[in-house]
Amino acid sequence: MENKSYVVKMKGTGVHEKNTLNSVNANGLAGSGIQHKTVKDIAHPAKQKSCRQRWNIRASKMSINTLNPIRSIVDGMKLTPNPEKPMIALSIGDPTVFGNLPTDDKVLQAMKDAIDTHEYNGYAPSVGYQKSREVLANFYSCPEAPLKAEDVLLTSGCSQAIDLAITVLCNPGDNILIPCPGFSLYKTLAVSLGIQVRLYKLLPEKSWEIDVQHLESLIDNRTACLIVNNPSNPCGSVYSKEHLQDILSVASKRCLPILADEIYGDMVFPGCQFHSMASLSADVPVLACGGLAKRWLVPGWRMGWILIHDRNQCFGKEIRQGLVKLSQRILGACTIVQGALESILNDTPQEFYQRTISFLKSNSEICFSELSTIPGLTPVMPSGAMYLMVGIEMENFPEFEDDVQFTEHLVTEQSVFCLPATAFEYPNYFRIVVTVPEEMMVVACGRIREFCQRHYRPRSQESAELDH
Amino acid sequence: MENKSYVVKMKGTGVHEKNTLNSVNANGLAGSGIQHKTVKDIAHPAKQKSCRQRWNIRASKMSINTLNPIRSIVDGMKLTPNPEKPMIALSIGDPTVFGNLPTDDKVLQAMKDAIDTHEYNGYAPSVGYQKSREVLANFYSCPEAPLKAEDVLLTSGCSQAIDLAITVLCNPGDNILIPCPGFSLYKTLAVSLGIQVRLYKLLPEKSWEIDVQHLESLIDNRTACLIVNNPSNPCGSVYSKEHLQDILSVASKRCLPILADEIYGDMVFPGCQFHSMASLSADVPVLACGGLAKRWLVPGWRMGWILIHDRNQCFGKEIRQGLVKLSQRILGACTIVQGALESILNDTPQEFYQRTISFLKSNSEICFSELSTIPGLTPVMPSGAMYLMVGIEMENFPEFEDDVQFTEHLVTEQSVFCLPATAFEYPNYFRIVVTVPEEMMVVACGRIREFCQRHYRPRSQESAELDH
Ligand SMILES: Cc1ncc(COP(=O)(O)O)c(C=O)c1O
Ligand SMILES: Cc1ncc(COP(=O)(O)O)c(C=O)c1O
Repeated sequence: MENKSYVVKMKGTGVHEKNTLNSVNANGLAGSGIQHKTVKDIAHPAKQKSCRQRWNIRASKMSINTLNPIRSIVDGMKLTPNPEKPMIALSIGDPTVFGNLPTDDKVLQAMKDAIDTHEYNGYAPSVGYQKSREVLANFYSCPEAPLKAEDVLLTSGCSQAIDLAITVLCNPGDNILIPCPGFSLYKTLAVSLGIQVRLYKLLPEKSWEIDVQHLESLIDNRTACLIVNNPSNPCGSVYSKEHLQDILSVASKRCLPILADEIYGDMVFPGCQFHSMASLSADVPVLACGGLAKRWLVPGWRMGWILIHDRNQCFGKEIRQGLVKLSQRILGACTIVQGALESILNDTPQEFYQRTISFLKSNSEICFSELSTIPGLTPVMPSGAMYLMVGIEMENFPEFEDDVQFTEHLVTEQSVFCLPATAFEYPNYFRIVVTVPEEMMVVACGRIREFCQRHYRPRSQESAELDH
Repeated sequence: MENKSYVVKMKGTGVHEKNTLNSVNANGLAGSGIQHKTVKDIAHPAKQKSCRQRWNIRASKMSINTLNPIRSIVDGMKLTPNPEKPMIALSIGDPTVFGNLPTDDKVLQAMKDAIDTHEYNGYAPSVGYQKSREVLANFYSCPEAPLKAEDVLLTSGCSQAIDLAITVLCNPGDNILIPCPGFSLYKTLAVSLGIQVRLYKLLPEKSWEIDVQHLESLIDNRTACLIVNNPSNPCGSVYSKEHLQDILSVASKRCLPILADEIYGDMVFPGCQFHSMASLSADVPVLACGGLAKRWLVPGWRMGWILIHDRNQCFGKEIRQGLVKLSQRILGACTIVQGALESILNDTPQEFYQRTISFLKSNSEICFSELSTIPGLTPVMPSGAMYLMVGIEMENFPEFEDDVQFTEHLVTEQSVFCLPATAFEYPNYFRIVVTVPEEMMVVACGRIREFCQRHYRPRSQESAELDH
C-alpha cells in the first residue's frame, strides 16, 4: 500500500498528485456532513440550464479528498542519494522487492493448479466462491470465535476489506477512532467518504499499547467504529491478551463495533502470541480484515477478506446485507487466487511461516541492537509484523527541524531512506522496514550511526533538566 | 456483473439483500446533494455525548443506496422450473459457464509464465505496472487516438474502471446520462455516490441507436458526463461511425466528457465494424473503459482499464491526478494478470477472437430467426457483444402483466430463464444471452415458441387499430 515500490522509484507512475484544491478543514478533518458548493457552482454561479459553452472538467471533491499522506510527504522531499553509496531503501513495505523473502513454492503451485482446472475463469459471486469462503472460515474458526462460510467475504486485497468495512459502518458526519501512529489508509478512506477521524494515542514507552483512557475520551454519539491494528504497521507491536481485553471492555461499555485490521495476524515473533480480537469477546461485534499479502508474501495478488464476527446479532442482517451490496460494486478478488486459496491455506508448510518470522525477528534484533547504541535514537523493539519505529531526540539534532528533514538528509549523505513517521501522523520518529536482506540492514545501520554521530549535539545536563 | 452465476444459483451467496431502508426518492433518483438525517440521528434525537448504552449498529446510507436492480427483481421472482424439463438459463452474462467458450491456451500459458518468473508477486504501482500500461497503450493506440503508457490505468475489472471514471468526473448533485436500456452498474454506482442518473432512450426500431435529440434535451449545467456503451449490453448493438459522430457532436457542442464503456469493443460480427469513440473525435475528451472479461473470456480475473483520451488538455492534470489518487484507495488488478498482459494481448491468435465472434453471430442468427417467427415476439438482431433483446407484445399476452411475469411463467412452464428487461429499466422486453451452446439455444427457442403459442391471444384488427 503506502509502502509500494514507488516509494523508491519516485515519480514512477508517470502522473504526480498534488493537492491543488482541497476542501479539508485546517485541522485536517473533513466530512462535517455539510455539502459545500462544488467547484462548478462557484465557477458558474448563475449559469442557465442550456448554457454549457466551454470545457470545464474538474476532478470531483471525492478524488481531491482522497489524500495519501505518504505520497504528499515523499513527493515533497528532496531525495538525492549520495552518489558514492548505493541506495538502501528501508521504506518499502513490500516484502518481495529484495528477493530474499519469496513466497512458498506450494503457493505458486496452487495458482498453476487453479489455472489448469479451467474452472476459475468465470465470475465468482461478488462475495467470493462459496468453497473459498468455507476454506477461510475453517482456517480462522476457533471455539471462542466460530466462523461459517457465510461470515466470510473475499475482497480485492485487505485494502478493499477495510474500505467495505468502513463504508458499511459509517455515514458522512460520523467519526471513527484510528491509531496514532497508524496505517495511513484508514484516514485516506474515511476522509474521502466524509467521515471524521479521531486519532487515539499509542504509547511507545509501553511497546505501543493504546492509551485506553485517551481512546475512551474520544468516543461520542457519532463514533461509528474503532479500528484496531494488531500486529501493527508501523509499530510492529503485538498486544497482550490483557491489553486487548482492556480495549474490548471500552468497546463493550460504549457499544462500539471494532474493525480489527489483522493483516499481520500470526506474524509474531517466537515467545509472543497473537490473539485475534474476536476470540476475546463475547459481546463486541468485530469485522476482522485480513489477506494473503503479508503472511504469504504475495501483496500484488490482491486477495483480502472480511471475517464477520457478530455477537448477539448486533450486526444482524443489515450489516451483512450492506457488505454484500457494497461487494457488488466492483466485485472482489481474482478468481484464480480464489481457486488457489484452499491449497494456499492448507498446504503451505509450517516451516515457511516460521522461516519468515525467524528472519523478521533476527533482522529486527540486529537493527534494534545497532540503533539502541546510537546516541540520539530510541528504537522500539517490535514483537511482530515487519516494522520497527525509531524515535529521534530532535533536540540533539538541532540542524534538523523534524523527522522529514532528518530522513531527507539521511538520504543525501548516506543513501539510506527511512519513512518519516509524520506520514503516520507521528512526528520525530521514522519507520524501518525489516524485510531487507541482513547484510543490507547491517550496512544501513552503520550508515545511520555515522549520520547520527556527525549530527549529534549533546545537551548539557542542566539544559536537559531545565526542560523537565 | 449483473449476470453472474447467482442469477441461476439463486440465493447462492448465503446472504440476501433486500432494501429494508431506502432514502432514494420515489422517482428513483437519489443524490439531491442534501444530507438527510442519518438513521442514528433519528433513533437518538437527544443523545448526549457520553451516552452510548446499547448496541445500535446500522448499515450506512451508502450501502443501503447501493441498489442492484437485477438482484432485487430476480429475488422477487418465483423461479420454480418445470421438473420435467431441465433448466436452461439464457440469463447469465458469463460466457464461461457452459464450458463451450473456453479462453485460449495462450492466455492460460501467459498466466503460468507470469507465475514462473517470480516477478509479479509484489505490489505494482496503484495504476498498474509501467510495462503493462505500455503494452495496453500500444495495443489500443491508433493514429486518430494515440495512447501512451501514461494514458492507461489498470483496474480491478471494467467495473472498477467505471467506478473510478464516474467518481473522478462527478460530484454529488451532478447528473450523468446513461442509456436506457442499459447495463445496471452505471446507475448502481452513481446513485450510491449521490449522483443523479438521467436515462436517454435507445430506439429498438433503429437497432438501438441513441435518440440523440432526447439525449441532448437531458443535458443541463450539472451534467458531468455522458456514458456510451458500444457494443451494448443488453442490446448487442454496434453503432455506425455516423451515429457515433452524431453523439460526439452533441458532446462537443455541450462540452460533455464521455465515459465510453467499450468492454465489448471489437466483439462485432463480420461485416460490421467497431469504432472507438475516441478515434472519432478531435475535441471531446473520453475515458474509455475496457477489460479482459469478455473478449478474452476470463471475467473472473478482474482485469480492467481506463484509457485516458484527453483532447486539448480538457481533462488536464486534474483528472489524471484524480484518477491516480482514487486508484490508491484499494489498488487495482492482480499482478499475475498484469504480468501476463503482454503475452495475452500480443500472442493470442486471431483465430481465437474470430471463433468466438462466429459462434456468437451464428447463435444470434439461430435465436433471431427462430424468435422472429413467433407471434407476439419482436427480437432485435444484434451486431455484436453477446446479447439479444426481444420485445414482448404484451397486449397479445393478456395473462401477464409485464415482462417480469412473462419470464417468470416461462420458467415455471418451460424451465427457460431470460432476464426481464425491467432490470435494465426497459419493461416489456427480455434479454437473451447468446453464449449458450447451440443445441441449448435451439431447444430454448423451441420452448419459448411453445410457451408463446400457448399464451398468445390475437387481437382483432379493429381493436388493434383503435389503439392507434
Ligand atoms: C496495517 C495494514 N493494513 C492493510 C494493508 C493493506 O493490505 P493489502 O495489500 O492486502 O491491501 C496494509 C499494507 O501495507 C497494512 O500495513
Ligand atoms: C456493459 C458492461 N460494462 C462493464 C461490465 C463489467 O465488466 P467486468 O466484469 O470487467 O467488471 C459488464 C459486465 O457484464 C458489462 O456488460
